[in-house]
Amino acid sequence: MRCDRLWKGARLATLAAGRPGLGIVEDGVVAATDGLIVYAGAAADAPAGLDAAEIVACDGRWITPGLIDCHTHVIHGGDRAHEFELRLAGASYEEVARAGGGIVSTMRATRAASEDDLVASALPRLDALLAEGVTTVEVKSGYGLDLANELKSLRAARRLGAERPVSVAVTFLGAHALPPEANGDKDGYIDRVCAEILPAVVREGLADAVDGFCEGIAFSPEQIARLFEAARAAGLPVKLHADQLSDLGGAALAARFGALSADHVEYTGEAGAAAMAAAGTVAVLLPGAFYFIRETKQPPVAAFRAAGVPIALATDCNPGTSPLTSLLLVMNMGATLFRLTVEECLAAVTREAARALGRLGEVGTLEAGKWCDLAIWDIERPAELVYRMGFNPLHARVWRGR
Amino acid sequence: MRCDRLWKGARLATLAAGRPGLGIVEDGVVAATDGLIVYAGAAADAPAGLDAAEIVACDGRWITPGLIDCHTHVIHGGDRAHEFELRLAGASYEEVARAGGGIVSTMRATRAASEDDLVASALPRLDALLAEGVTTVEVKSGYGLDLANELKSLRAARRLGAERPVSVAVTFLGAHALPPEANGDKDGYIDRVCAEILPAVVREGLADAVDGFCEGIAFSPEQIARLFEAARAAGLPVKLHADQLSDLGGAALAARFGALSADHVEYTGEAGAAAMAAAGTVAVLLPGAFYFIRETKQPPVAAFRAAGVPIALATDCNPGTSPLTSLLLVMNMGATLFRLTVEECLAAVTREAARALGRLGEVGTLEAGKWCDLAIWDIERPAELVYRMGFNPLHARVWRGR
Ligand SMILES: [Zn+2]
Ligand SMILES: [Zn+2]
Repeated sequence: MRCDRLWKGARLATLAAGRPGLGIVEDGVVAATDGLIVYAGAAADAPAGLDAAEIVACDGRWITPGLIDCHTHVIHGGDRAHEFELRLAGASYEEVARAGGGIVSTMRATRAASEDDLVASALPRLDALLAEGVTTVEVKSGYGLDLANELKSLRAARRLGAERPVSVAVTFLGAHALPPEANGDKDGYIDRVCAEILPAVVREGLADAVDGFCEGIAFSPEQIARLFEAARAAGLPVKLHADQLSDLGGAALAARFGALSADHVEYTGEAGAAAMAAAGTVAVLLPGAFYFIRETKQPPVAAFRAAGVPIALATDCNPGTSPLTSLLLVMNMGATLFRLTVEECLAAVTREAARALGRLGEVGTLEAGKWCDLAIWDIERPAELVYRMGFNPLHARVWRGR
Repeated sequence: MRCDRLWKGARLATLAAGRPGLGIVEDGVVAATDGLIVYAGAAADAPAGLDAAEIVACDGRWITPGLIDCHTHVIHGGDRAHEFELRLAGASYEEVARAGGGIVSTMRATRAASEDDLVASALPRLDALLAEGVTTVEVKSGYGLDLANELKSLRAARRLGAERPVSVAVTFLGAHALPPEANGDKDGYIDRVCAEILPAVVREGLADAVDGFCEGIAFSPEQIARLFEAARAAGLPVKLHADQLSDLGGAALAARFGALSADHVEYTGEAGAAAMAAAGTVAVLLPGAFYFIRETKQPPVAAFRAAGVPIALATDCNPGTSPLTSLLLVMNMGATLFRLTVEECLAAVTREAARALGRLGEVGTLEAGKWCDLAIWDIERPAELVYRMGFNPLHARVWRGR
């Protein structure tokens, strides 16, 4: 069998569903043709006469699936470094707000930016992720909060995939926060999102999923349910920022709509976990935000394990609560702060992150038929990827076979 | 005035002692001759006819002093990733010990490594620090724990300064832990450190300072006092791993010997803080270890501020409790976990870190007469260096004018 490219002499963490643990293969090969994996497994079991135009000797390095960051807000104007500084210096929330802080400041900066500006300011953040082996990234809108600016944000998100060799999953998050011009009328804003903004998003094919923020400071379960009905009518899968600061039953609501994922979920209870398990909804844990806002309520990891809820991890890269662009650090935080095991952390940024994007058929494991997205590491054992902090042992990144 | 090299059009955070806050200069220049700063300040106040063979246009970028990591153990054999993995999987301390874990495993790996091996394994860690603008790094021994292996470790530490453009401060930490062959005889081991190992270290000129670990699991205040007497007799300044897990009065002991620094100091009380202030002993906070071992006792930052104790921050890069190689992340942890202000964090990895090494006369601020060690950043405001996580905005690093 002849293929385009062949990686030999590697140790594989395939993360393949049928294999125990990380799906480790000691003397492994990966073969790609037309950007797809045609074989990934033991050299001894490879198809007879496996050969390639280009052979890469891996010298015993480890290969994992390319990493997947399944929850980011990398498209946004401005930053909130000054707000961070003021808070540390003892400013109250009122003082921060008077100084122009809070999510509204990011909305203003996003509205003021052109589509080109948004792409340009996101690229350094995206590049930081890619430098650690990320090959698929989810990007949300949600700082435009009106028709023109949500469309602009989504177009900028889509363009990231043309600017860099990376797969981009774009999520429409119009229901992120209430814009000031809505004058407190959350129902009216959700009406506009459902009747005006979402249909325009769908017409332009700008979103792969619909997301919302279900919280006292954002939207109620009833408002989110209306959004999800509209998404369902438009044929788009849903996800939800759920139970981050309080338990409004967001995770159960998401599960009721067969959501791909419920994200944050620190305050989710056992009933929510059971509903997620039944619906196959992934729990996307975001330890960067937990750390940055000094949350103390742990997500119910034991309940997720007991119920069989898949667990993913992501950066939540955003200017207000998680200015974080390292998925390796996220794994360390998942282990250190949430006591996930090494296997859980690695699955959480590969297989389970793919599941949280509805892309498990395409990426997330080293299996024939999927895109040949690889991260090749200078490490002795996979645990090093979780254990170290602020160290990048990536040797090479491969996206779609190149 | 003609100099070798001139950086123009920069914004400076000089950290100079006489200036308020970060010592900010909006339209600043830095001039260097023979590797030393000859002028750093406002362009408007520059010496008449300031010119250089080479002029670097900074285009409004920020320049800070090169960063200083004043507490590391980057010289060591092996890693403890497997131990980390076992612990997360629920292994007890006994099971970890049976699997070869703990500090003794690092001692064994360090003893088994050649001096060349130690240098080679440390260089990627050092390079990670340098990539974020570090120009001075402290490196301790302390995993050899016998004459030959402590000397080997110190020689390896010295060699790092020849392998890379960085200033290395080498610290002898023979009193880090009791080696197994001492059979529990801590007093006998300290005798050997004082009478045999330290004199050999001094003869070879291998150390710039002497450090110890004062803790129930390590050495008592009385044992450390004997070590410090020996260091004083040898003419070497001292520092101490103090009050990390309990308050044994380590910080006060360090102050009594005029120590450059007392490090960790989570459990230091007000009396310790007062003693440190009186002695000019720097509190070196190590939030990476605090985070990694999930410590909950906060260092007494308010007491340090009230007493006027200088505060530094460092990585504590070590395989057991802080496998961390990002001083930028340390600043974020200092702010997020310990509520240091942005100004305190930046001073903590420049001016105060220099003070903790006894090198404030040479490095740590942008002032004429000091080494021209610079970090040049692609940022809009210094707070960004503290606010982001896992993002490196370094534009260029300058060590001794180049
Ligand atoms: Zn989010
Ligand atoms: Zn230490």
